[in-house]
Amino acid sequence: MSLIVHKYGGTSMGSVERIRNVARRVAKWHAAGHQVVVVPSAMAGETNRLLSLAREITPQPDPRELDMIAATGEQASSGLLAIALQTQGVSARSYTGWQVPVRTDSSFTKARITAIDGDRIRADLDAGRVVIVTGFQGIDPDGHITTLGRGGSDTSAVAVAAALEAHECLIFTDVDGVYTTDPRVVPEARRMSVVSFEEMLEMASLGSKVLQIRAVEFAGKYRVPTRVLSSLTDPLIPLEEEITSGTLITFEEDEKMEAAVVSGIAFSRDEAKITLLAVPDTPGVAYSILGPVAAANIDVDMIVQNQSVAGTTDFSFTVNRNEFQRTIELLKRDVIPTVKARELVTDDKVAKVSIVGIGMRSHVGVASLMFQTLSKEGINIQMISTSEIKTSVVIDDKYMELAVRSLHKAFELDQSPTEKA
Amino acid sequence: MSLIVHKYGGTSMGSVERIRNVARRVAKWHAAGHQVVVVPSAMAGETNRLLSLAREITPQPDPRELDMIAATGEQASSGLLAIALQTQGVSARSYTGWQVPVRTDSSFTKARITAIDGDRIRADLDAGRVVIVTGFQGIDPDGHITTLGRGGSDTSAVAVAAALEAHECLIFTDVDGVYTTDPRVVPEARRMSVVSFEEMLEMASLGSKVLQIRAVEFAGKYRVPTRVLSSLTDPLIPLEEEITSGTLITFEEDEKMEAAVVSGIAFSRDEAKITLLAVPDTPGVAYSILGPVAAANIDVDMIVQNQSVAGTTDFSFTVNRNEFQRTIELLKRDVIPTVKARELVTDDKVAKVSIVGIGMRSHVGVASLMFQTLSKEGINIQMISTSEIKTSVVIDDKYMELAVRSLHKAFELDQSPTEKA
Repeated sequence: MSLIVHKYGGTSMGSVERIRNVARRVAKWHAAGHQVVVVPSAMAGETNRLLSLAREITPQPDPRELDMIAATGEQASSGLLAIALQTQGVSARSYTGWQVPVRTDSSFTKARITAIDGDRIRADLDAGRVVIVTGFQGIDPDGHITTLGRGGSDTSAVAVAAALEAHECLIFTDVDGVYTTDPRVVPEARRMSVVSFEEMLEMASLGSKVLQIRAVEFAGKYRVPTRVLSSLTDPLIPLEEEITSGTLITFEEDEKMEAAVVSGIAFSRDEAKITLLAVPDTPGVAYSILGPVAAANIDVDMIVQNQSVAGTTDFSFTVNRNEFQRTIELLKRDVIPTVKARELVTDDKVAKVSIVGIGMRSHVGVASLMFQTLSKEGINIQMISTSEIKTSVVIDDKYMELAVRSLHKAFELDQSPTEKA
Repeated sequence: MSLIVHKYGGTSMGSVERIRNVARRVAKWHAAGHQVVVVPSAMAGETNRLLSLAREITPQPDPRELDMIAATGEQASSGLLAIALQTQGVSARSYTGWQVPVRTDSSFTKARITAIDGDRIRADLDAGRVVIVTGFQGIDPDGHITTLGRGGSDTSAVAVAAALEAHECLIFTDVDGVYTTDPRVVPEARRMSVVSFEEMLEMASLGSKVLQIRAVEFAGKYRVPTRVLSSLTDPLIPLEEEITSGTLITFEEDEKMEAAVVSGIAFSRDEAKITLLAVPDTPGVAYSILGPVAAANIDVDMIVQNQSVAGTTDFSFTVNRNEFQRTIELLKRDVIPTVKARELVTDDKVAKVSIVGIGMRSHVGVASLMFQTLSKEGINIQMISTSEIKTSVVIDDKYMELAVRSLHKAFELDQSPTEKA
């Protein structure tokens, strides 16, 4: 008998019939003797409906009240799931974030979990109940309702699993696992049965939407074994089959994992590139440029600064394409007059492609194979950025699919690790 | 400067535009220097939508989970109202029942308020904020969410007003006050500017849907001056005008009130009559008949038992028409074999008509005028029941409108108290 946390997304909870299916699946786990805690999202579309009502009143609603409103979506879906479970003869009880309580800081609409009290959940589990905990929300030190931001239910689930020292956290979603790259771009993309936490972190932050990056961070921090698997299978598929399906995020590096030098290709088209040419290279220039950008709450992704030549340097960075115009205006107004760059060069038609693999740590020539592959295809690399386990390049966005496909083939990701060995 | 509680129903909160109007009205009171607490209902239709989802899963959902689900409607509307107020430049904050907290017993779906802690609300009021408190809900001693049942927001508002010792509780609704009878039946029906608590209690319990009976009881217990008034007027009508509009429920009997012998005519068509003929009249017979009915959670309204003749008595009572079939089955199975009634006579085509007036206490001949009026119209009275301030009759339901109209005229309710004097 193990303690298992299940998380179901908005699509899985999208209608009464789907909630019934979730209940069937949970009941199956419960009947097999497991203690189950379920963290559901709001019914698909509900959070958007609620936020639209608020934005109809004003484009900039008060975050505290926004959380008050948005938190109701998960509260309702959790109650519905409890009822669906009871209808299947399973004793079940739902709790909101504040009832558990799930304690957070006071950053409304993007709060961070600080602590979870597992006592109440454990008492119900020990009484034989399935416990449902609303995803996405918590309570701050002053007793206000907070939400964790978009996709926060993933984080809730992993955090609950950590607090209860669960055997595994199962993230049920509308894909059947983590792939070497997006199967819509590369039909040969292969589902990984295991992925390391570090790789998952890079994949998540690089635009692979399977699992929220904060959830991955949480899983890493507390070493919560987390599995991404499909909620679209028959809810009554045999437990033995389900228990090994999907992709498991692990924290142990065994030989098999070392063997995979590159595990996956991540990519993102939501990029825009900004370069300040010939900036006089004085100490603090990076801060002079990016300080005002950060202060305006604009998220900067890649940052590249080259060796200075004749006392000046070229400084490039990427931002989300939605923030492109705002960033340019800001730079022209607040930055360029100060740092005295010669020229501003911008391009919002770029894409970022990254190879990710824990094996890169100990293997040379990985980046080189990437550059060679792109060169063969005649794709010009505009920016390069590397970390221990990934190499990212910025390229013209019209070549993005071509780059992903050729890299996927070059690193033999269409073959299973066994075939390669 | 006074502390005023406003309550707005689901229709008043029914859309973003209507919520804006509520905010305009509240802002007007706030600008005039009043401390305002607002208790809103859920947006019209929302509670039904939520309960339908639950009933789609099972016809008999768990009450605890039903409350979890239903309570979200007011939480969302409260947040929306706070945002709308802020947009008007008014500092505002919304609280759920558990945040205040509004403490209740554990009778899910029909909980009763046991205590309200006013500290948190008072602190916000003193900081210059308008405070919004979700209607309809509270928290039980174990920290579960409870709801007060249909129309519970009226009770919430009056209870909050009592806890804060508010100057007045304003129930904004889609009618402009309490009438001598339903204007749809009697076009001459007149709005009362003042009605006594006792009369309101009788009016509310007799089918006048303006204000929930539990709210009236609460108002009486804590002597909360409560005013029923229209939310359909221009939200910016002058405060002096609004402050005296509608109908005020008072606890002081002045001469003017004594003058009105009969204040209003209440009626209800949801009645069904059941008579057990020739029941052997032994001690405890009433309990033998009504005990099983109460145990089956069927609400009994009027009860009439006549003087026994030759050791037997006829025992009549009325139930809601929806419970008619169930009551008959129950009587045939569990009651009649025991009490040995000779015959069961039933009629589900009856209506109840009542005259209500605090002046009846000290005036003779009031009931007599009622019987005379009905007799003149050829309406047969099937049952009579009286209390200190009302007289109710059960009649064939096809005569209901005729009875109400003729009684309204006979008691000169179409004329203002001044005209009569």
